[in-house]
Amino acid sequence: MTGSPALTLYGYWRSGTSYRTRIALNLKGLAYEQRPVNLLENAQSRDDYRSLNPQGLVPALMVDDSVLVQSSAILEWLEERFPDPPLLPKAPDLRAVVRAMAMMVACDIHPLNNIRVLKALRSDFGADDGARNAWIAHWITQGFAALDTLIARHGGTYAFGDDLSMADCHIVPQVYSAERFHVPLDAYPALMRAATNARAHPAVAAASPERQPDASPS
Amino acid sequence: MTGSPALTLYGYWRSGTSYRTRIALNLKGLAYEQRPVNLLENAQSRDDYRSLNPQGLVPALMVDDSVLVQSSAILEWLEERFPDPPLLPKAPDLRAVVRAMAMMVACDIHPLNNIRVLKALRSDFGADDGARNAWIAHWITQGFAALDTLIARHGGTYAFGDDLSMADCHIVPQVYSAERFHVPLDAYPALMRAATNARAHPAVAAASPERQPDASPS
Repeated sequence: MTGSPALTLYGYWRSGTSYRTRIALNLKGLAYEQRPVNLLENAQSRDDYRSLNPQGLVPALMVDDSVLVQSSAILEWLEERFPDPPLLPKAPDLRAVVRAMAMMVACDIHPLNNIRVLKALRSDFGADDGARNAWIAHWITQGFAALDTLIARHGGTYAFGDDLSMADCHIVPQVYSAERFHVPLDAYPALMRAATNARAHPAVAAASPERQPDASPS
Repeated sequence: MTGSPALTLYGYWRSGTSYRTRIALNLKGLAYEQRPVNLLENAQSRDDYRSLNPQGLVPALMVDDSVLVQSSAILEWLEERFPDPPLLPKAPDLRAVVRAMAMMVACDIHPLNNIRVLKALRSDFGADDGARNAWIAHWITQGFAALDTLIARHGGTYAFGDDLSMADCHIVPQVYSAERFHVPLDAYPALMRAATNARAHPAVAAASPERQPDASPS
């Protein structure tokens, strides 16, 4: 393979899965074009976007003429195609720890709190804002408690040791979401130290929602 | 590294994440001991189990004296430590497709329908069995529609081509769950063909819930 592929990220400024993909792209030092998909206008469900991603979810990463979907799979692809700087340690046992941290967010926190689920809680069960915020806080609290234990055990400057990893790519957007929904975070000092350090890294900071082209005052 | 590590799987016969881990272990031809964790008795929340997995979720895989958690991370570890037979194709672009299929189940279907979420729907919103079954069917239907499109595009005997992969490890348990909750599956012919073929493989069949030591009539 010669040269870098043309990369276009279809995402939404405040989507956690888009945010984690931006962090990884930035950490790899890759240039990419952004095509905003406005979730509030349901743009992800339109035919033109579904022709790219039949699931109708963000993000999608166009690589030359092909499309990658599912942010955690995209991060693994980035790691394989652009190994430097690495977002996983070398030893399988340590890679498994980093991936477990990432999956705690990707599988057990984020999916329960994203916009399509919150909409369903309202439409199916009449959940008002208070009930939905309690729901969000519940799953974040459960997941962060476990993550804090793992980060206290394995973390350094960042979630795993002193190098940014896939774990941080997943954790930083989840902390952003927790703050947005006013979830108290004092009980997770190891996690918050790692997240604060990660956010201060220029590549991570450049991925933050308010710095994206489609950001709007909320 | 010399010899194979001693492997002990902490899981539950009907848990989808335990099931997918058993399939992968079996496909790799690995021997492992099973330690059932009875989710109906909340055994996953007890201190002895939480000392293994602070998240209090199944599965956990004990490898000699260390513990791996998060089934999708465990599958990646198995692939790295025991590469033969592979559960991912070789080329990064193709690996990304298989991982995307796996993540559609791991992130966008299963987490919304597992036992702790169904309990929360009942306790937080008073959801009865009918409402919970509609919730389950909704997320399975959404995810399976997208998966069926991808499998029609990339599948052969199995979900991706003619070799069993991480995608099948994730899809087979999700089909089992869909059948258990009587979700109509006629609209997903490519997915169902792949799942039927996968289930007929002896290593996959040996992982099925009813063949586990803790299986009980339901």
